[in-house]
Amino acid sequence: MKKIEHIGIAVKDLDASEKLYTKLLGVEPYKREEVEAQKVMTSFLRLGPNKIELLAATSEDSVIHKYLEKKGEGMHHIAFAVTDIRAEMARLQAEGFRLLQEEPSAGADNKLVCFLHPKGTAGVLVELVQDN
Amino acid sequence: MKKIEHIGIAVKDLDASEKLYTKLLGVEPYKREEVEAQKVMTSFLRLGPNKIELLAATSEDSVIHKYLEKKGEGMHHIAFAVTDIRAEMARLQAEGFRLLQEEPSAGADNKLVCFLHPKGTAGVLVELVQDN
Repeated sequence: MKKIEHIGIAVKDLDASEKLYTKLLGVEPYKREEVEAQKVMTSFLRLGPNKIELLAATSEDSVIHKYLEKKGEGMHHIAFAVTDIRAEMARLQAEGFRLLQEEPSAGADNKLVCFLHPKGTAGVLVELVQDN
Repeated sequence: MKKIEHIGIAVKDLDASEKLYTKLLGVEPYKREEVEAQKVMTSFLRLGPNKIELLAATSEDSVIHKYLEKKGEGMHHIAFAVTDIRAEMARLQAEGFRLLQEEPSAGADNKLVCFLHPKGTAGVLVELVQDN
């Protein structure tokens, strides 16, 4: 793994959170993108080599809606940049980590992604991301 | 702000979590350091421009012990690298963010640090860090 690609933050109000994080980080969001499979609208801010991804639910059956109901706003996942996502998935599975998917899927920001089960990573939802 | 300096992860068992994150990230921790004021033992892993900081309580009245009791293991804070921490603290206060301290304090890894109140940052505990 090469670096922290982004941190995903679950938010209730995307407009308000974009304004808040613009003030906090001193940079404007560079794009919004809907991930229909997960029923989320994302907004990205770039900070040097890293990004912040704000995540808002677009439906009540979104994973983010459920997360907000259970835990409230806050950090949702860490995404690590990888060169070869299939090789990393195979390596991690061999090390005993539980993958939440068998094949990489299309994530926001033109990436191939795979999530790991947080029970195997000290409570952290980990995402692998590879440039597509 | 320049980049994500590190992500702090609250863990119950520092030895076990070091092994887990060594397997996950493919790198060994490069140091442990106790932060006596916060009653935590930290362990750092480097990942390109970023770090992961594992945080374990050294006492039952540690903030990390309380966090684990309330929320369980998982992401505890995001630390952003800043060039001039006092200037950032003044800027953020003027923008309406609530600082948890009036003066920077000595953090782990030879840094000057300041925490912001998570109520003003969409539930995220934000730390500013400046090389000391």
